[in-house]
Amino acid sequence: MSVDRLAVLTAGQLTESYAKTAHGVLRYGTREVVCVVDQVHAGRRAVDVVPFCDHPAPVVADVAAAAERGATTVLLGVAPLGGRLTPEWHALLAGALRLGLHVEAGLHTDLRTDPTLAGLAREHGAEIRNLRAAPADLDVPRSEPLAARVVHTVGSDCAIGKMSVVLELDRAARNRGRRSVFVATGQTGVAISGWGIAVDSVVSDYVAGAADRLVREGAARGDLLWLEGQGSIYHPAYSGVTLGLLHGSSADALVLCHRAGQTAIVDYPRTPLPGLADIVRGYEQAAGWVRPAPVAAVALNTAHLDGAGARAAIAEAEAATGLVADDVIRFGPDRVLDAVLAALP
Amino acid sequence: MSVDRLAVLTAGQLTESYAKTAHGVLRYGTREVVCVVDQVHAGRRAVDVVPFCDHPAPVVADVAAAAERGATTVLLGVAPLGGRLTPEWHALLAGALRLGLHVEAGLHTDLRTDPTLAGLAREHGAEIRNLRAAPADLDVPRSEPLAARVVHTVGSDCAIGKMSVVLELDRAARNRGRRSVFVATGQTGVAISGWGIAVDSVVSDYVAGAADRLVREGAARGDLLWLEGQGSIYHPAYSGVTLGLLHGSSADALVLCHRAGQTAIVDYPRTPLPGLADIVRGYEQAAGWVRPAPVAAVALNTAHLDGAGARAAIAEAEAATGLVADDVIRFGPDRVLDAVLAALP
Repeated sequence: MSVDRLAVLTAGQLTESYAKTAHGVLRYGTREVVCVVDQVHAGRRAVDVVPFCDHPAPVVADVAAAAERGATTVLLGVAPLGGRLTPEWHALLAGALRLGLHVEAGLHTDLRTDPTLAGLAREHGAEIRNLRAAPADLDVPRSEPLAARVVHTVGSDCAIGKMSVVLELDRAARNRGRRSVFVATGQTGVAISGWGIAVDSVVSDYVAGAADRLVREGAARGDLLWLEGQGSIYHPAYSGVTLGLLHGSSADALVLCHRAGQTAIVDYPRTPLPGLADIVRGYEQAAGWVRPAPVAAVALNTAHLDGAGARAAIAEAEAATGLVADDVIRFGPDRVLDAVLAALP
Repeated sequence: MSVDRLAVLTAGQLTESYAKTAHGVLRYGTREVVCVVDQVHAGRRAVDVVPFCDHPAPVVADVAAAAERGATTVLLGVAPLGGRLTPEWHALLAGALRLGLHVEAGLHTDLRTDPTLAGLAREHGAEIRNLRAAPADLDVPRSEPLAARVVHTVGSDCAIGKMSVVLELDRAARNRGRRSVFVATGQTGVAISGWGIAVDSVVSDYVAGAADRLVREGAARGDLLWLEGQGSIYHPAYSGVTLGLLHGSSADALVLCHRAGQTAIVDYPRTPLPGLADIVRGYEQAAGWVRPAPVAAVALNTAHLDGAGARAAIAEAEAATGLVADDVIRFGPDRVLDAVLAALP
């Protein structure tokens, strides 16, 4: 997919939180973004519309304007849609295919099984890519040495910033001249980097094998890999995915992501979380069942606190764990990056 | 499936180790077995042919003879076949469908997608059942109290007897008059009990949800559930499945299965196993991340040792862990069952 020139389709929702794929691609993506397609914000630039976004891509009103600007591929920039496609979105994607543009999406519904869209793609020589599709030939891990260092984000819960943290650390490492690579394990991450595997679509026996394949593919692209984590070993529904990734990852070091002050799993409020030092120990024990890896730093999410509260929470996390802790989004990734690099063999 | 009358098809391989589905169904199955279909051993009885089998079912030469004896359903009793169907097996199953017999199989290949077999099934009013097929409507665990006690087998490695151990314990509990239920999580177990979910075919996000659904379905059938374990938290490829089952199971007590003397994962010989007491602690820690459950006993596999060696290994396991240990196949399930029942709340 390396020659794609992306048009990110948000269709009026560019500033909504649903547009997290668009926001991630604009903030962290390494593929070329030609424009955003959004009729509400047309005529402005992404940098002027999206908070925390410094991307100068123009916002255009429709896919025809995107094609005129040289886009080759329309990326669906809005994540959920309830996982399904509304008639309006269906019409927009059909229009893109009629112009010969490829379509990329990570919906639960596989657009390739939509007869109308599949027919248009064939007719106009365009591809429909399902970012969530698992490779058909997955296997178990190979248990061979890897020619790269792997850093893996783990977390106390879901949806606390594991992807953003590795994206920030990867970008900072590249800015320092490292051959650093973000390795995606979820559909938003795959949309951002253009490769990876959405492990939530992988059959349970092959989660570790998927992680192993990803780090081997990453090792062909660089020598410092940042593997996106999923779930939590403390999460009643998703702990298996977390452990499979951890054991398949060949991780050399872990970064523990935690929302400051959180004391229970959000989706399962009757499942309490232990203290931060115990969470560090839990992950180190879990890694050690197969391959020891230290937690090198704590990435604290303090978005719900004011500045003073954030600094106090960071100091408290450092005192509790004896590790460097910081909010890499709020205060920058350098302290956590330094701690991680120091922990690598 | 409760009214099925089974013909177990082994087609010449009844005494081979590949026939583990047939052996399991004959030894532990609760559904009626009318006959075995195996041309090599035809004319004898299962009890006379299969080691450790006390089932009096006659062995007949072909599916026509099975139909004459009142069989309604042909169960493929040979597990691997490389997961695929040879022309000979295809012809045998086609013959069964032509007689209006249902066909049950747990192959990697879904027989329902074979046009010839699917056509014959339609034509003759027969069903093809894929024992490995995951339910389409799986979800995450519900986190509600369960009106049954759950005992879950866990292990230091794969293929060390986790299914046999729960089958022995379930049978012994039923013999004591308990409303005891075996809950299958693999295709052989599903063939034995006629229900369950082969979790290796479940998408990773739903392993815990599958375990939760299974124990809720089990609680409608009895109040003492024996949930078959899979894999090991120490197994580099399958640990995620193990933890997902453990956290989705609502287990009240665990039985740790271990092959006496084993010191590394068989498939990954560079992954060492800790000592038995550490394995007990590892599982109790892992369970405790979501819901504490004690290891109530150790089920030791001593098949590779002589009698004196087995007794010494059992004594050693008891000394190391402070728990009751026994080989439930070799010396009977009663001591382990007593220890488990004593540990339940």
